[in-house]
Amino acid sequence: MLWLAREVALISLALGVCAIGYALLLAFRNLRQPEGSGRMVEIAGFIKEGAKAYLKRQYTVILTIAVIIAVLLCFISPRMALSYILGALSSVLAGYVGMWTAVNSNVRTTYAAEKYGMGKAFRIAFNGGMVMGLMVVGAGTALISLQFILYGALYGAADAIRDMVGYSFGASTVALFARAGGGIYTKAADIGADLVGKVEAGIPEDDPRNPGVIADNVGDNVGDVAGMGADLFESYVGAIISTMVVAATAIRLSSHSEWTNWALYPLAVAAAGIIAAIITSFVVRVGKGGDPSKPLTLASIIAAIITAVIAYPFAVYTLGSDVGVRAFLVVVAGLAAGIVIGLTSDYFTNKGKKPVRKVAEMSQMGAALTILSGLSYGFLSVVIPAIGVALAEMISYLLLAPYGFWYGIYGVALAAIGMLSLTGIVVSADSYGPITDNAAGIAEQAGLGEEVRAITDKLDAAGNTMKSISKGFAIGSAALTALAFLAAYASNISAVTGLNLHTVMKLLSILNIKVLTGAIIGIVVPAAFVSLVIMAVSDAAFVLIAEIRRQLREKPGILEFKEKPDYGRAVAIVTTYAIKRLVAPGLLALLAPIVVGFIFGPYALAGMLLSAIVTGLLLGLFQGNVGNTWDNAKKLIEEGLFGGKGSDTHKAAVIGDTVGDPLKDASGPSLNIMIKLMSVVSLVLSTIIVNYNLLKLLGI
Amino acid sequence: MLWLAREVALISLALGVCAIGYALLLAFRNLRQPEGSGRMVEIAGFIKEGAKAYLKRQYTVILTIAVIIAVLLCFISPRMALSYILGALSSVLAGYVGMWTAVNSNVRTTYAAEKYGMGKAFRIAFNGGMVMGLMVVGAGTALISLQFILYGALYGAADAIRDMVGYSFGASTVALFARAGGGIYTKAADIGADLVGKVEAGIPEDDPRNPGVIADNVGDNVGDVAGMGADLFESYVGAIISTMVVAATAIRLSSHSEWTNWALYPLAVAAAGIIAAIITSFVVRVGKGGDPSKPLTLASIIAAIITAVIAYPFAVYTLGSDVGVRAFLVVVAGLAAGIVIGLTSDYFTNKGKKPVRKVAEMSQMGAALTILSGLSYGFLSVVIPAIGVALAEMISYLLLAPYGFWYGIYGVALAAIGMLSLTGIVVSADSYGPITDNAAGIAEQAGLGEEVRAITDKLDAAGNTMKSISKGFAIGSAALTALAFLAAYASNISAVTGLNLHTVMKLLSILNIKVLTGAIIGIVVPAAFVSLVIMAVSDAAFVLIAEIRRQLREKPGILEFKEKPDYGRAVAIVTTYAIKRLVAPGLLALLAPIVVGFIFGPYALAGMLLSAIVTGLLLGLFQGNVGNTWDNAKKLIEEGLFGGKGSDTHKAAVIGDTVGDPLKDASGPSLNIMIKLMSVVSLVLSTIIVNYNLLKLLGI
Repeated sequence: MLWLAREVALISLALGVCAIGYALLLAFRNLRQPEGSGRMVEIAGFIKEGAKAYLKRQYTVILTIAVIIAVLLCFISPRMALSYILGALSSVLAGYVGMWTAVNSNVRTTYAAEKYGMGKAFRIAFNGGMVMGLMVVGAGTALISLQFILYGALYGAADAIRDMVGYSFGASTVALFARAGGGIYTKAADIGADLVGKVEAGIPEDDPRNPGVIADNVGDNVGDVAGMGADLFESYVGAIISTMVVAATAIRLSSHSEWTNWALYPLAVAAAGIIAAIITSFVVRVGKGGDPSKPLTLASIIAAIITAVIAYPFAVYTLGSDVGVRAFLVVVAGLAAGIVIGLTSDYFTNKGKKPVRKVAEMSQMGAALTILSGLSYGFLSVVIPAIGVALAEMISYLLLAPYGFWYGIYGVALAAIGMLSLTGIVVSADSYGPITDNAAGIAEQAGLGEEVRAITDKLDAAGNTMKSISKGFAIGSAALTALAFLAAYASNISAVTGLNLHTVMKLLSILNIKVLTGAIIGIVVPAAFVSLVIMAVSDAAFVLIAEIRRQLREKPGILEFKEKPDYGRAVAIVTTYAIKRLVAPGLLALLAPIVVGFIFGPYALAGMLLSAIVTGLLLGLFQGNVGNTWDNAKKLIEEGLFGGKGSDTHKAAVIGDTVGDPLKDASGPSLNIMIKLMSVVSLVLSTIIVNYNLLKLLGI
Repeated sequence: MLWLAREVALISLALGVCAIGYALLLAFRNLRQPEGSGRMVEIAGFIKEGAKAYLKRQYTVILTIAVIIAVLLCFISPRMALSYILGALSSVLAGYVGMWTAVNSNVRTTYAAEKYGMGKAFRIAFNGGMVMGLMVVGAGTALISLQFILYGALYGAADAIRDMVGYSFGASTVALFARAGGGIYTKAADIGADLVGKVEAGIPEDDPRNPGVIADNVGDNVGDVAGMGADLFESYVGAIISTMVVAATAIRLSSHSEWTNWALYPLAVAAAGIIAAIITSFVVRVGKGGDPSKPLTLASIIAAIITAVIAYPFAVYTLGSDVGVRAFLVVVAGLAAGIVIGLTSDYFTNKGKKPVRKVAEMSQMGAALTILSGLSYGFLSVVIPAIGVALAEMISYLLLAPYGFWYGIYGVALAAIGMLSLTGIVVSADSYGPITDNAAGIAEQAGLGEEVRAITDKLDAAGNTMKSISKGFAIGSAALTALAFLAAYASNISAVTGLNLHTVMKLLSILNIKVLTGAIIGIVVPAAFVSLVIMAVSDAAFVLIAEIRRQLREKPGILEFKEKPDYGRAVAIVTTYAIKRLVAPGLLALLAPIVVGFIFGPYALAGMLLSAIVTGLLLGLFQGNVGNTWDNAKKLIEEGLFGGKGSDTHKAAVIGDTVGDPLKDASGPSLNIMIKLMSVVSLVLSTIIVNYNLLKLLGI
């Protein structure tokens, strides 16, 4: 006996709503905690104000672009345009709620660290992260389910899913701009504050004398929380919808009677992930003197087990017992690949392992060898994850391919869902990081003393591994999701041209010159994208450094605590740059597929997408890991190795860390969004592109 | 009236022999020049000795590997094995002759600069470069023609060409190991000597007090001359043979009566290039106080025009007037794309242009911004060349595709020949660089005074633009050549399986899960390759720095010219590391296609090749340009900008330069060889791989 499609949708809707409700509960519980008083609250106020002001401007720009796109989309389908706007707003919501919780939780974490110690401080920071994690999965699951139920009831399931691609498109659009903008902001501020503060003026991190310190703290919230939240929301939504699309466009064609259940199984897995996240949240505890990194790791393991245990019966109820087992195994394969990617990232970025240690050791010979050895490990770190993604993709395909080609492709998309089924808990742990980072900053600026700072530093350090694992999940799943969109795109070419799938497959051969041309042009987009983002960070940092140097020069009293630095000017500079420079990289990803599709045709576009996927995977994995390797090499030296803080070795490592900053938090993580945005744009426009090229062929 | 195939082969054989003869003439003429006396000769002797000793060890290791491969190749075809050994030996010869001329010309250039001034010094250095350039094109053209004539007479043209793939394979094998080994040597020595010498001890470049100075000078010869020569020899031979192979495997199948003429047209273009190079060599002159960069640029332009003028009648005589014009246009398109790539490289690496200037400016804020802005421009520099390659590939295809699919693919291969038709003059100008670099080093170490040093420095600076242009040619043509090999590989799958080409094309669809799996795994090889090479350079530099620091610490008299440094130990350290670490990256490129072919099958292997081509193009262009941008930013600052030599800005720029060194001269240029080696291995083994997988399918 199978569940009905509507039952699946209702279950996931209900669980999505539960997640939102629980998130709100946690948010209010955190708000009820005392936020301390005096200097602490003042600083937290600056941060809150800066973050809100920036996000307001950022979202104004992004939503303007989104509205223009939505208007254009109306020509394709008004309902798709509606979904698009809904997706864009969901993403804004996810980012905003995350930021709001973070800027309210940071100071409360500091206060709890001062008054009650590690256990309570951890709890507040982690709950703050949970709000974000639960909002991402809750809103995503609930709104997709709701759209399916409403659209489906009105127009039938197939059309409903076709239009829901707009939801994914909207989420990707906002996520890309927000990741780029937030990344530019946070990294420019970070670099500017660090370079002048730590290296030149010799004052510690987060010191209130540093004119860039508030901008730096604001950056954590608008980049690492709001940007990251929009990013993972987009991954989550993209994976679910790409799987639904494959089911709707293709399995339907093979006239499988239960295809709506196939389309909805991703929501069932998502529901399993929500249950796991909620249960897990009760388990995460840390004692007074305990190590906060253990409960975070434990949480992921428990969540993975619970998800797997629940996904199994859900698979059987949704898809039937035979094929259900295979689909379940696909989810497990995706999950396993995600964990392999995460563990590899951990190896390359963990202070206890060889790569970080060796980069620290190399730093004794100057910054050039810090950079070179880091680059070397960064490239090496691509190897295992790429093989992991390739195997996950092949195994998932082979598990379901016996039922037909499109079932195999469905498997590829489903593997991404497996990888992302832990999103709830991963985002929670990942948002926890910037909250504790801010808490440490507030403790330092408010002069709360060594003991408090020790707790907040320890809380802060625990978040790093989770951060690199979540990046691995995001980029790994992106490749699989984009491949699924690519397949859906091909099936659409077949539908529009009337050519059968075999002919389309032949035309998509790597021997077709159009495909090859597209594949070579395809390297341009990731390269230019990375270039634009890094350049924006460098330029903004350059101007910020000049401003900080000016303030320190013109007001020498600042360094002796006699004068107050002008935090606001630093914040304003970074804000202006980030807003101005987030547009170009985002537009590049939006327009490149359109340009190539219209000039070189639909086959070149497919080649371009494939090439963007593989180079995006390469550069994404590389950048994410290399940045964390340098970061932790610096931290290892700060623990006293190879000369310790203040030594030449440390200075070299700081340069490495600074170079890695925009790679790991701005340009690198944006790539996974970019490849999905490019695929989804291609899919949405495929009908128009094919028709345009057919007319061109006919000389009309 | 068409020429007969044998006539074309004889013409190119004759011109190849002419080139070799002229090269020998120039070599002897240079040898007859006085080499000075005293300290100069002593230093030149050290360099000569170190370079010979290293190359002897390097080629012993490489030829051992080559012999093993040749023995295995005997199982496929003994004649192919013979060609393989011939290709390997040709490459060794090209490298060795280049090194030999360079180590004899450097000191003579210095002496001429001292005695006669700019004009004569330039002449000697340029003639030294010409020896290398003419040997590369002469030996390549003559030996390919000779093999065609001999094998062809004995076994027929088609079998002859099939076996001659071994020649390209042999050249690629040696080139990859030699590029990696030479690159590791030269860059480790360069970094080690520079970091301690310039940055720590504050002594100028090439100062005799630096214990690493001889190792650094040796590196120029074994890396930038011998390694580069083997590299461009491989490109040249690969382009010619890939075009012949396409003609032989495919145009033959379409039973074109004149297919042997198609197969030999590449040799006609090569012959045109040789004529152009010889004529041009008479034009290149520089006056006593003149600027040596002008004649080099002029030489390329004149060579391009002469080549084009001669290639036109050759096309008509070889292919007939109708199609000849189209083939000629393909050559021009390739040439144009090569020039576009070169000019783009020049823009991004020229001291007078914005990128270099901005990187220098950013260096005022510390090394982190030097690196970040450089990375940004490096990625941006990929955009135009990639589009250039894509357009050249598509236009070349479309020009000949009206005659059939394989004619189109032939066009793609031919475009690479157009790009490489300037090889003679480009290699000449490119080898000129290290000779003048060495000459400057000898002048400094022998204490020849400001005036001589000014001339040698000016000579040295002129070589840089040519260097970046030649790198652009190498990587751009590599993508086209590798695509041609990929097509030949596909045609071989069709021949072995008995499937018609349409079916094979469908199986090579980007929707085939095997192709996708291979494409994702394909990013692993370039990434791991780059990682291994950079790591080898860092490790060797690390040990060398420790050694130099030890010498300066234990013998404080060195810095006061009272004690002699132990140059030999530095040379020995770098030699040992380079020999030990050149094996792994080379084997990776050799074995990866075999592993993927046997485990995942021939379609996954095709996907892997495509992915390696695009990521190799991306990383190759990026690394080549970024290194030169940093190099020239440093030089710009040394001219007095932003604080000049010795300032903090300069120190930051030196770090950038050092990071760029192995990227631009070791890992970057190796990638173009790597993608061809991978394609040629796949082509040679395609029959075995397909049969193995067929047997596996049958369960045998």
